[in-house]
Amino acid sequence: MLPPVDELEKCLARLPGLGRRSAARAALALVREKERLLRPLVSALGVAEATVCCCSRCGAFTTRDADPCALCTDETRDGAQLCVVEEPADILPLEASGAFRGRYHALGGKLSPARRVGPEKLRLAELQDRVVRSGVREVLLALSTDMDGDATAGYIAELLRGTGARVTRLAFGLPADSGIAYSDPLTLRRAIRGRQDA
Amino acid sequence: MLPPVDELEKCLARLPGLGRRSAARAALALVREKERLLRPLVSALGVAEATVCCCSRCGAFTTRDADPCALCTDETRDGAQLCVVEEPADILPLEASGAFRGRYHALGGKLSPARRVGPEKLRLAELQDRVVRSGVREVLLALSTDMDGDATAGYIAELLRGTGARVTRLAFGLPADSGIAYSDPLTLRRAIRGRQDA
Repeated sequence: MLPPVDELEKCLARLPGLGRRSAARAALALVREKERLLRPLVSALGVAEATVCCCSRCGAFTTRDADPCALCTDETRDGAQLCVVEEPADILPLEASGAFRGRYHALGGKLSPARRVGPEKLRLAELQDRVVRSGVREVLLALSTDMDGDATAGYIAELLRGTGARVTRLAFGLPADSGIAYSDPLTLRRAIRGRQDA
Repeated sequence: MLPPVDELEKCLARLPGLGRRSAARAALALVREKERLLRPLVSALGVAEATVCCCSRCGAFTTRDADPCALCTDETRDGAQLCVVEEPADILPLEASGAFRGRYHALGGKLSPARRVGPEKLRLAELQDRVVRSGVREVLLALSTDMDGDATAGYIAELLRGTGARVTRLAFGLPADSGIAYSDPLTLRRAIRGRQDA
């Protein structure tokens, strides 16, 4: 309707989780409530742009004044266990699970011939280097359970062969709070294959 | 997880249409793709903050260099018809309907004892003034169909009594593409009361 509001809407619509309609509503709310909504957002974006970076060691998000990041420098964590994720954002839910107490390595994506992401675009050399130098005994792959994730897992297993580290992958199976009726055939096939004693 | 990202997430979660989860995803996407997402958003917010204002005549969003706004200065529109809305954002869908070719007046809200919005907080004096001075013959109230909207409609009808302008309100009834099964009793009651020849 108004070029500056349209432009704002366009920028918001690019964010994941915002449809065209939500972006339009958000844009109008921002110009309507500049004091309460627009200014704090501008300021938060400014701080994030200036301070947030990726940890030079593991690739997780951190701030410029804390590199290596808190996860990398936490001496209570087990340096012999290294969890490989695609994106820094994947670390958050893994930490929330409370089930992993080692260190992380974010690849910055996954191999994908379709999207022209080859090994040279990912932090794979850094991974190999860390495993070799830091006495890592287990590399736990927490990757997507799609074709690209599978290919990436296979590539890493090959890459780390001979380093002496065990390469494992998160279990396949049914998600929590789900039912058989909602499960796709592949998930069920994997859940049956991986069945355990009850 | 990281204070600057948390702060960003908090600012985004205040926007309408964004839940906690979408805000978290959007915040992470913004710091991950500063070039593509964060910087254009900062710039669009800056332009919107600096240029967008409310038309001094009708209250619609406009830019500082176009006040009165395009709707107010468009000579092809019928100045004898004035549509009263709560918020500038309400004008957009009315314009999209293509069914109204008069001018607009945004109140900046609706009367609400619960939220302590009295007549002095709305652009009601400006409305009365416009109706009296500009030869408005019909004031079409396009207000919410809730208690506050009803109260505001009643107040305006009273306020404009004696100006000679006819005060009308949008019809109540069933929305398009809806079914009887999805309609609440009040909507159905109003739709029955307002029934028309088929």
